[in-house]
Amino acid sequence: MVSNNQYYPTYLQLEKILDSQKPLSFEPGNEPAHDEMLFIIIHQAYELWFKQILFELAYVKTIFEKSKVDDNSEDLNLCRHRLKRVVRILELLNNQVSVLDTMTPMDFLEFRNLLTPASGFQSKQFRLIEATLGLEMQKRHHHDYYKRTNEGGFTKDDFSDIESTEKSATILQLINKWLERMPFFNTEFWKSYKSVSDLNDQDHPFWNDYYALYKESLSEREMPKLDDLKERILKEKNESENGFSNTALRSALFIILYRDFPVFQTSFQILDTLIEIDHLLAGWRHKHYVMVRRMIGMRVGTGNTSGAGYLEGAVQQHYIFKDLAGLSTYLIERRKLPRLPEELIKELGF
Amino acid sequence: MVSNNQYYPTYLQLEKILDSQKPLSFEPGNEPAHDEMLFIIIHQAYELWFKQILFELAYVKTIFEKSKVDDNSEDLNLCRHRLKRVVRILELLNNQVSVLDTMTPMDFLEFRNLLTPASGFQSKQFRLIEATLGLEMQKRHHHDYYKRTNEGGFTKDDFSDIESTEKSATILQLINKWLERMPFFNTEFWKSYKSVSDLNDQDHPFWNDYYALYKESLSEREMPKLDDLKERILKEKNESENGFSNTALRSALFIILYRDFPVFQTSFQILDTLIEIDHLLAGWRHKHYVMVRRMIGMRVGTGNTSGAGYLEGAVQQHYIFKDLAGLSTYLIERRKLPRLPEELIKELGF
Amino acid sequence: MVSNNQYYPTYLQLEKILDSQKPLSFEPGNEPAHDEMLFIIIHQAYELWFKQILFELAYVKTIFEKSKVDDNSEDLNLCRHRLKRVVRILELLNNQVSVLDTMTPMDFLEFRNLLTPASGFQSKQFRLIEATLGLEMQKRHHHDYYKRTNEGGFTKDDFSDIESTEKSATILQLINKWLERMPFFNTEFWKSYKSVSDLNDQDHPFWNDYYALYKESLSEREMPKLDDLKERILKEKNESENGFSNTALRSALFIILYRDFPVFQTSFQILDTLIEIDHLLAGWRHKHYVMVRRMIGMRVGTGNTSGAGYLEGAVQQHYIFKDLAGLSTYLIERRKLPRLPEELIKELGF
Amino acid sequence: MVSNNQYYPTYLQLEKILDSQKPLSFEPGNEPAHDEMLFIIIHQAYELWFKQILFELAYVKTIFEKSKVDDNSEDLNLCRHRLKRVVRILELLNNQVSVLDTMTPMDFLEFRNLLTPASGFQSKQFRLIEATLGLEMQKRHHHDYYKRTNEGGFTKDDFSDIESTEKSATILQLINKWLERMPFFNTEFWKSYKSVSDLNDQDHPFWNDYYALYKESLSEREMPKLDDLKERILKEKNESENGFSNTALRSALFIILYRDFPVFQTSFQILDTLIEIDHLLAGWRHKHYVMVRRMIGMRVGTGNTSGAGYLEGAVQQHYIFKDLAGLSTYLIERRKLPRLPEELIKELGF
Repeated sequence: MVSNNQYYPTYLQLEKILDSQKPLSFEPGNEPAHDEMLFIIIHQAYELWFKQILFELAYVKTIFEKSKVDDNSEDLNLCRHRLKRVVRILELLNNQVSVLDTMTPMDFLEFRNLLTPASGFQSKQFRLIEATLGLEMQKRHHHDYYKRTNEGGFTKDDFSDIESTEKSATILQLINKWLERMPFFNTEFWKSYKSVSDLNDQDHPFWNDYYALYKESLSEREMPKLDDLKERILKEKNESENGFSNTALRSALFIILYRDFPVFQTSFQILDTLIEIDHLLAGWRHKHYVMVRRMIGMRVGTGNTSGAGYLEGAVQQHYIFKDLAGLSTYLIERRKLPRLPEELIKELGF
Repeated sequence: MVSNNQYYPTYLQLEKILDSQKPLSFEPGNEPAHDEMLFIIIHQAYELWFKQILFELAYVKTIFEKSKVDDNSEDLNLCRHRLKRVVRILELLNNQVSVLDTMTPMDFLEFRNLLTPASGFQSKQFRLIEATLGLEMQKRHHHDYYKRTNEGGFTKDDFSDIESTEKSATILQLINKWLERMPFFNTEFWKSYKSVSDLNDQDHPFWNDYYALYKESLSEREMPKLDDLKERILKEKNESENGFSNTALRSALFIILYRDFPVFQTSFQILDTLIEIDHLLAGWRHKHYVMVRRMIGMRVGTGNTSGAGYLEGAVQQHYIFKDLAGLSTYLIERRKLPRLPEELIKELGF
Repeated sequence: MVSNNQYYPTYLQLEKILDSQKPLSFEPGNEPAHDEMLFIIIHQAYELWFKQILFELAYVKTIFEKSKVDDNSEDLNLCRHRLKRVVRILELLNNQVSVLDTMTPMDFLEFRNLLTPASGFQSKQFRLIEATLGLEMQKRHHHDYYKRTNEGGFTKDDFSDIESTEKSATILQLINKWLERMPFFNTEFWKSYKSVSDLNDQDHPFWNDYYALYKESLSEREMPKLDDLKERILKEKNESENGFSNTALRSALFIILYRDFPVFQTSFQILDTLIEIDHLLAGWRHKHYVMVRRMIGMRVGTGNTSGAGYLEGAVQQHYIFKDLAGLSTYLIERRKLPRLPEELIKELGF
Repeated sequence: MVSNNQYYPTYLQLEKILDSQKPLSFEPGNEPAHDEMLFIIIHQAYELWFKQILFELAYVKTIFEKSKVDDNSEDLNLCRHRLKRVVRILELLNNQVSVLDTMTPMDFLEFRNLLTPASGFQSKQFRLIEATLGLEMQKRHHHDYYKRTNEGGFTKDDFSDIESTEKSATILQLINKWLERMPFFNTEFWKSYKSVSDLNDQDHPFWNDYYALYKESLSEREMPKLDDLKERILKEKNESENGFSNTALRSALFIILYRDFPVFQTSFQILDTLIEIDHLLAGWRHKHYVMVRRMIGMRVGTGNTSGAGYLEGAVQQHYIFKDLAGLSTYLIERRKLPRLPEELIKELGF
């Protein structure tokens, strides 16, 4: 039995936590602005949660960085569980905006000028979350802002931290590799599968069947999708150009189509949760945009960005797992799925 | 004392309500798609709430349609209260999307084709909400869709209902008139107010002071805002061009600036709540857009719209109280507000 | 390609749905009470969602009613998924209370008397949800109320529907059987497992080891838990007395302890989700209780119950999966779990 | 224009905030428990929000501590606004529980023993919130726990901080005084009001009328409420016995009944929001109770309390504004309210 003697406030280091709110407007010479306390505390709460998200993502990275992800260990199950936790946290952060909404534009005005050129843009942890997931600097909206140290961008050290995170293996890249190398896709099946309609490609009899079924499901107007399908998914192509490779997308599509087999259930949930995370981040950016728009109207942001305008751009541009989400374009109905060979089905179960 | 004999299921007409789910995929000859039930029920729940929103908005209209809104009656207070209820409902509807998110794209595919060309686009009640608030047909994204009866648009009757709602006095117009005619703004004050710096307009000494203070608060880069301010707010101009008139915006700005006086508290909350409603509708459209994007990827919507693409356009275009929200561009700090004359202050209180 | 011609309002039967709100206070001779519309619509929305919950639970029942639940089919995965959907719906219903909170007690008073003796107590669907999950009549708080047809109870027909649902196999009973008959627990392992410390029972060497480890983890004050453990879980006893049998609880405990093995992941999530459903129902009942307390204070409920007092009792008494939730009393740390034999581990994976 | 040079991470003191997570299980000699990070961060987030709540409550106290609350200043309006913010924060904190729910009982077990005897019971700030609002030590569930320094209670210093907060004027007491001294209730009206039915008390003609109307609205079974009404509200009695005095409750009841008059709108919202805060605290305690019950089952809490059992007691016992909430017992319908004299009505408006 343990005999330590913990005290809740000490254990949580509350002395430090609760001594870190120093509103600028409360300093001598300034007029105290009541709502600056809320402004500080809500952003600190955001940052605490960002730390937790980074902690969960770091775990996910350690698993997918292993040379081989073991389906039978607890690893995948915990990845799924912890990514779902990230989802819950992001839902909370979306709700949290409603508290900041109790600060009216005029309340903000009372201390707004004191903040210049600081702004939420400079949340290093949020940038690290984006970078860890796989957002690249050159794909960021107005990526030139990031380096302008004295005008609302990052300090050199912080910028280089973001850069080095981006340069290390991102979750996007790790998931891409995991999908490319899934042992299942190296099995006999892919060679022995007997296509019912051998359209145009000797090597992918399964995908030929799928292609025919997908084509059948399209309306006239949607036929151009077929070219995208071939170019982006079916075609053998190895370079991934900073996104998912064709090989990885084929794996992902197969998993999504045959998710009901036990062996794919957890993998499917992981892919689905990554898409959900992307969408919740988009939702958060949109709420943030609406909030800033309400708060400062058409004025310049404290960080010298164009304010609300900047944020609207980020909403549309910062999707990370777009390729995965886009796979729903290529689904076919469950009951029309090519029936897999008996032995394979056995392999896919317990 | 009452002696009726109500029974909850009868009172709520549950026999009808709970007998109104007829999934097409459950009909003979089709393959039952389990999730079509959820699809139907969630949309029916949305429509119930839309009815409630329309009911609250109708009340608000009756009040502002009165020749004179009486500040001393319960009217304004109930308007405030009921608009806040609309806010709570919209928050719920935003959360409700999370239930539909439990339907995966592949589950949707099982009955998606049966729906053609029906789609949420055809929610007449949602269009009526937009129209009642003040969204005009020609400002709607892809307004040509609305009339195409057999291709996902509305029936003639429904279209004409939307049109006639739009033609009747909208909440935007009624609020505009209310702001224009507020008795307060006809008082002696506006003539007798003594300006400290008489810039350029004999008639608006108060606004001259305000103008000078606002100018002082701008950074170099923001100076062009001054022209907008003059053109859109300070200038005497009566035509409102399907939005708020300059006169109304001046009233609104004054109310927002001096909201702390009892006489303006309720009015301020009403204006603020209208902005919030606009933003929650935007949030809902954005969630809807993300959800459809996830559900059908880049495929055509069941209603023959471009699907997700259509919805993204609506998110950006359908703001109704943009002019009101934009007033936060023109705020000045509370402590710098021109001090009002003593007698006026008395009038503004109890 | 399909060539039907669906119209959203027709498909959703909105004509019926939106024509089912008949506030009693709007009838000739009464004084219209504005908020009765909200009262009706929110309860109808609740009932729509109750129908959806019953629909999902019915699916779950069909799966567990099968003579053998096939781990390799999509069945278990869909059960998990659909129970999680029930969780999302219940979360929504919890949030939905916040809309009713916009009705003040005095607004309610305007039509409250017209409702007598109807009340939410008479929500047959809610009673069916409880009964389907496994709540028995005699365990219900004030179960004598249910039969009093003219004083706020149910009609004979409705009462007998609730009764017959209760008499049919409930989810609690089906899950109990499923746990009792899990093929895994009939394997060689249970006989061949070599106990390190053979305390007192030849037949359960694995549980002996577990018992020793659990004992070690208890503080002095918690030692009485050991008797409960033996009596309620370890002891061979077949009768389940309207709850889970010892055999079933042993299976459940094993699954919870060894959840990380692929073969148990989905089963664990199903058990965990049932507990979550129970807790969300408790949360809902508590919110409901608080709301009624706020609404009518200490007055008698419209349904002649003691009002808020009745509801408080139900909060504490209506837990259904208490036995499952209680298993967290008997957990031991993951790293201290008895290591399973190599061959078994193989069986538990892919 | 300002020329400071703020940097977001410095402004928010993130170096301190993000360096305050030291999981005990991560220390040398221990087995790292992944979820301890979540446990620490979520409690720190709670504490940040508690600080914000205390900050808002402190503002409310300064206003009601003034010798006279000026209805015409911004004071009351800001009190209302900031109490509503507390509501939003408490709603967030209720939602936040869902993130902790992603920690399973077995995850908690991995570091649970390290915490002894620390527990959430020791959240000093939460106790200060309760004390500031008006919860007294002797009314707290198991108030003997609080002093047991080495067994999960508070240190002497912290205990004495809670005690001195309790001894200072609480919000309950301040609101009580404010209600007792409202100038309105000293007006001529109360003497000159002409009762239509002079039942039994020469001094309260208005309340006599009200009494008759209330009596009329009661069912046979509810008649005993009349005695409570007389004893607790109508009777002239000055001592408040650690709650609201009869005089204060009469004021509150009048405000609730006649809330639609401009002069009472803000006051009504303040009273209503205090009740909502009480209910949200109860909701939070209940969620907390359910969560702990799920987490540790029937085991002893880390703080040596009886765990879940302790929390259930607090849910029922810690209501602070019970007297205010109870006033809904005594409402009568708006349309039956005694009509006030014309001159008074004028006074109550603008």
